[in-house]
Amino acid sequence: MTVRFGLLGAGRIGKVHARAVDSNPEARLVAVADAFEQAAKDIATAYGAEVRSIDEIEAANDIDAVVICTPTDTHADLIERFSKAGKAIFCEKPIDLDVRRVEECLEVVEKTGAALMVGFNRRFDPHFMAVKKAIDDGAIGKVEMVTITSRDPGAPPVDYIKRSGGIFRDMTIHDFDMARFLLGEEPVSVSAHASVLVDKTIGEAGDYDSVSVILETASGRQALISNSRRATYGYDQRIEVHGSKGMVAAENQRPVSIEVANEKGYTRPPLHDFFMTRYTEAYANEIAAFIAALSKGQKAAPSGADGLAALKLADAALTSAREGRTVRL
Amino acid sequence: MTVRFGLLGAGRIGKVHARAVDSNPEARLVAVADAFEQAAKDIATAYGAEVRSIDEIEAANDIDAVVICTPTDTHADLIERFSKAGKAIFCEKPIDLDVRRVEECLEVVEKTGAALMVGFNRRFDPHFMAVKKAIDDGAIGKVEMVTITSRDPGAPPVDYIKRSGGIFRDMTIHDFDMARFLLGEEPVSVSAHASVLVDKTIGEAGDYDSVSVILETASGRQALISNSRRATYGYDQRIEVHGSKGMVAAENQRPVSIEVANEKGYTRPPLHDFFMTRYTEAYANEIAAFIAALSKGQKAAPSGADGLAALKLADAALTSAREGRTVRL
Amino acid sequence: MTVRFGLLGAGRIGKVHARAVDSNPEARLVAVADAFEQAAKDIATAYGAEVRSIDEIEAANDIDAVVICTPTDTHADLIERFSKAGKAIFCEKPIDLDVRRVEECLEVVEKTGAALMVGFNRRFDPHFMAVKKAIDDGAIGKVEMVTITSRDPGAPPVDYIKRSGGIFRDMTIHDFDMARFLLGEEPVSVSAHASVLVDKTIGEAGDYDSVSVILETASGRQALISNSRRATYGYDQRIEVHGSKGMVAAENQRPVSIEVANEKGYTRPPLHDFFMTRYTEAYANEIAAFIAALSKGQKAAPSGADGLAALKLADAALTSAREGRTVRL
Amino acid sequence: MTVRFGLLGAGRIGKVHARAVDSNPEARLVAVADAFEQAAKDIATAYGAEVRSIDEIEAANDIDAVVICTPTDTHADLIERFSKAGKAIFCEKPIDLDVRRVEECLEVVEKTGAALMVGFNRRFDPHFMAVKKAIDDGAIGKVEMVTITSRDPGAPPVDYIKRSGGIFRDMTIHDFDMARFLLGEEPVSVSAHASVLVDKTIGEAGDYDSVSVILETASGRQALISNSRRATYGYDQRIEVHGSKGMVAAENQRPVSIEVANEKGYTRPPLHDFFMTRYTEAYANEIAAFIAALSKGQKAAPSGADGLAALKLADAALTSAREGRTVRL
Repeated sequence: MTVRFGLLGAGRIGKVHARAVDSNPEARLVAVADAFEQAAKDIATAYGAEVRSIDEIEAANDIDAVVICTPTDTHADLIERFSKAGKAIFCEKPIDLDVRRVEECLEVVEKTGAALMVGFNRRFDPHFMAVKKAIDDGAIGKVEMVTITSRDPGAPPVDYIKRSGGIFRDMTIHDFDMARFLLGEEPVSVSAHASVLVDKTIGEAGDYDSVSVILETASGRQALISNSRRATYGYDQRIEVHGSKGMVAAENQRPVSIEVANEKGYTRPPLHDFFMTRYTEAYANEIAAFIAALSKGQKAAPSGADGLAALKLADAALTSAREGRTVRL
Repeated sequence: MTVRFGLLGAGRIGKVHARAVDSNPEARLVAVADAFEQAAKDIATAYGAEVRSIDEIEAANDIDAVVICTPTDTHADLIERFSKAGKAIFCEKPIDLDVRRVEECLEVVEKTGAALMVGFNRRFDPHFMAVKKAIDDGAIGKVEMVTITSRDPGAPPVDYIKRSGGIFRDMTIHDFDMARFLLGEEPVSVSAHASVLVDKTIGEAGDYDSVSVILETASGRQALISNSRRATYGYDQRIEVHGSKGMVAAENQRPVSIEVANEKGYTRPPLHDFFMTRYTEAYANEIAAFIAALSKGQKAAPSGADGLAALKLADAALTSAREGRTVRL
Repeated sequence: MTVRFGLLGAGRIGKVHARAVDSNPEARLVAVADAFEQAAKDIATAYGAEVRSIDEIEAANDIDAVVICTPTDTHADLIERFSKAGKAIFCEKPIDLDVRRVEECLEVVEKTGAALMVGFNRRFDPHFMAVKKAIDDGAIGKVEMVTITSRDPGAPPVDYIKRSGGIFRDMTIHDFDMARFLLGEEPVSVSAHASVLVDKTIGEAGDYDSVSVILETASGRQALISNSRRATYGYDQRIEVHGSKGMVAAENQRPVSIEVANEKGYTRPPLHDFFMTRYTEAYANEIAAFIAALSKGQKAAPSGADGLAALKLADAALTSAREGRTVRL
Repeated sequence: MTVRFGLLGAGRIGKVHARAVDSNPEARLVAVADAFEQAAKDIATAYGAEVRSIDEIEAANDIDAVVICTPTDTHADLIERFSKAGKAIFCEKPIDLDVRRVEECLEVVEKTGAALMVGFNRRFDPHFMAVKKAIDDGAIGKVEMVTITSRDPGAPPVDYIKRSGGIFRDMTIHDFDMARFLLGEEPVSVSAHASVLVDKTIGEAGDYDSVSVILETASGRQALISNSRRATYGYDQRIEVHGSKGMVAAENQRPVSIEVANEKGYTRPPLHDFFMTRYTEAYANEIAAFIAALSKGQKAAPSGADGLAALKLADAALTSAREGRTVRL
């Protein structure tokens, strides 16, 4: 069976998903929609698809699934529409920045029985997948403590920051999802500290750029997250998981692994400087996982409920940081 | 000038300090006292010193400085006595487990003008010293976030745990001192989570074995600390400091650095399995620093005030973990 | 301009090159030829090309360039035919196992003026490219000594060994090319030692499985090569280059970079176990370089002369090892 | 039993050995001799020994063993004298630069039955010892190929070079000993290439500064050695041993293991810049091994025969490099 796809949104990430669909032998890109028609046309031409409107894709009989890469504030509406239209849905994170709106949306999805997968791409990074596999294989015994480091090479424009929902909902949310994925238990309390150390204008926009978070589960498992909007040395993405029998860690990635030694020491190049090169394989793998789940009639994960759970942790962390108190969920 | 030393306490750590004094060309070990006379005799014989009582050392004219390695509950009394006797004092941490008692003791020290250095040995680890030097040299710009990982190979006996003041005052206290040392600012708030994941009997003794802590300073600098009483792979002691211009990190240490590769992968040996082998150089360096400060008439650091500050952070962390709230200092 | 390609040989490596051509926006795969028609058909179908005979491709007006991936003993003939037919040629290494035959063939190429690039893919590995770039950028000063380690996960079948021309012409030849590429001077003498340590049947087939080689240039620059047909831990491919100002090295590559720590130590997974996964990017990059050279009307490297030079080093090394003497070129 | 020592030669390396003897609980430094009396006095004072003449030490009843650290051209004579005097002998390498002289000397040692250990300190480096232990424990199966990298931070003065016997007898000799130690079989052929790339005055003095050597044993095991008198990044000392089941390698050592990351990449400090800091533990361990062998009545290794074997390899390598041919032993 070939899964026939419509792509909603032909921007940067839309291109990535289009390529992933096209290169998957069990999928085919049928149509592309975008408010900016030339963008849609470019992708459509490259992969032998048609340009269509969102309405046309919604009504199409030759489309089984959609990939939603439109602006965040359209996600929930589109999920509802395409759920009702009987399409399987892959939606870029987040479903919405507002927990209530996400809950409403997920009720619709539940009623319609639509397949919904949310784009927490990091679960599909080969290195993080190998960490998860090591845990599942029992290599470190029972999980006890998770440490996640996530630092961006540089802060996005303040305009983006303003629309982003803030660092916890935009950036840390990936780490909340990863923590849930690795802890194997739901966090029940959150302590967060947040500061503006990188860029004052981020603070003036009401957001933070440097955060530390502790999550704790009912049985006492802990996750530590540290985030910064700046890392001069590249995109710092590390995970380590400690268990009763040992530890497993995923190292940072760099485009080339060479080392130059001279009287100043031994120098390896900076890390990847961009999330799309750092997570190239993750993006391809997540679409492949979505297609595989559809083909086998299995549930795709991360689900809408995963998206909601991460968002709730983001909200709790924001409250914790703002009010200077541990928040219980 | 040769600094003439009396050693109070001839146990495991006393031996380490005796050797450090003996091998220092500017110091000499004159006398050793211990309730268990054979222990004192062994050290005295090895280094050409005399066995004396604590009273004799207090009254001696041929002794300039003492190293206090007796049980914790005698530290404050001995510091007071030897302050009044005009001796310089190196005291193993902690001064006392009770903040009030420490404050009283430090008042006496202040009045007498005695030189007092507290044994936070990790500040003198060559690797951590190099981290501090890199910061002081401006290699990473302004310090923003500090991450400290400290995991013991295994939990001490529950009997020890009961007398230890608990994990925050016994183990994390080293990390609180290191965080203060590296942050360059005083923490003003503390959030801690603490669990019993390693050994139930530790919990039954009223203590924790797995803790995560966030410290925040007035300007928003953050330190994250994670501790566990268990690390199957050895004594896990890592520090990383992020600043406005970059990052500096100290790696773990192992007795031998070889690597064996076979069909299972590439394996390097476990880390040091004992704090005394991990911190051999740090113990020698701290005594050398104490002697150098005395020789040059400079103030020795870490001071009594440093000991007090770390203890206050430990108390705050304990309150935070117990009461589930961020504690402001 | 779009370079229109014919693919000769639809085996394992043919597929790799077909994909590289197809995914290159400046190239198009027009036709595929293979003695085994189904293989040609599979590739043709996948990339929208036609199945044609070699004769048809030779005569075609709609084909600018060919990629030769047929068996080694057909390479020289095909190069000559397609040179005369006015096509640009990318040929998998080696041109031939016999130096005389290669020289004849290159004379034809020279007369026809055909563009010829030989598939020493390792020059296009991103890590080795970064090594070369560091040298060219002056990071290590003047090159002095090169060390190349190349160990295969396992020996090929003895049947292959027999047709391969032996380890020097089949395996070490890559390292000879790399040494020439990095030394910046031609080797003038060769000392080689060769043994059968891995598999006796390789020795019975007249070949070796473990070799060490020293190359020296006129100015005294040296290259050390070590090869084995077995490495239990994966495909061991390292290069280090020492110069007057420092050293640059390319590290080994593994599919995932995680580390598991437990009481046995710290273990990272084995390296890639197959040259096609290890050199995925190199294969894509070399075809891209060929296309770019054609598009810009530049000479493609490595050239036929490079292929010949490496083969001569292989022959000299074989003589050196067999006769137990240093061979001057 | 306490081994009572006389030290012959109170220079830089004499001090190192004096400290090692003094700190060993089973040994005592009784007397020190040096042509330059103040040097002898300094060591004697530091360790509670007497200054004596070589004749007095030879005749002394209170001395069981001597450590010979005098200039190279006195070694063979002193070994003979002290053999006849019934003393156990630890002699710094080399016994002599001339093979015949070494053979004569060893005949005397054999006749007298004296215990003789030669100072190839690297066998006692903890990391290289761990490599050897891994081999002996069967971790890599049967040894097949050894790679030894040894690069000095900088060339010694040409005056030293002239007296040194040349790079093969002075520097590579350590690697010849290590190769023999690790190969587990005697080399039967040697191919060496040698150049002057670092310093012309070394060439003018008739020596080389950059060498590559292949050793081969009767069963075909191979060792590759690369040496340079210059390494801007510090004292480069690596070993890797490949066997039928895997590989074991010893990594380079640096004084502190930190890493600084910024926009230029990740930089670790240079390696040790001096052999005495790099091999501190090795020097202590070798004297301890000598004392332990004497105490237990066992043969000390490396023996005089080991010293001779390494020298013969050095001579063969020199011939190979000079005459441009493989030399059979």
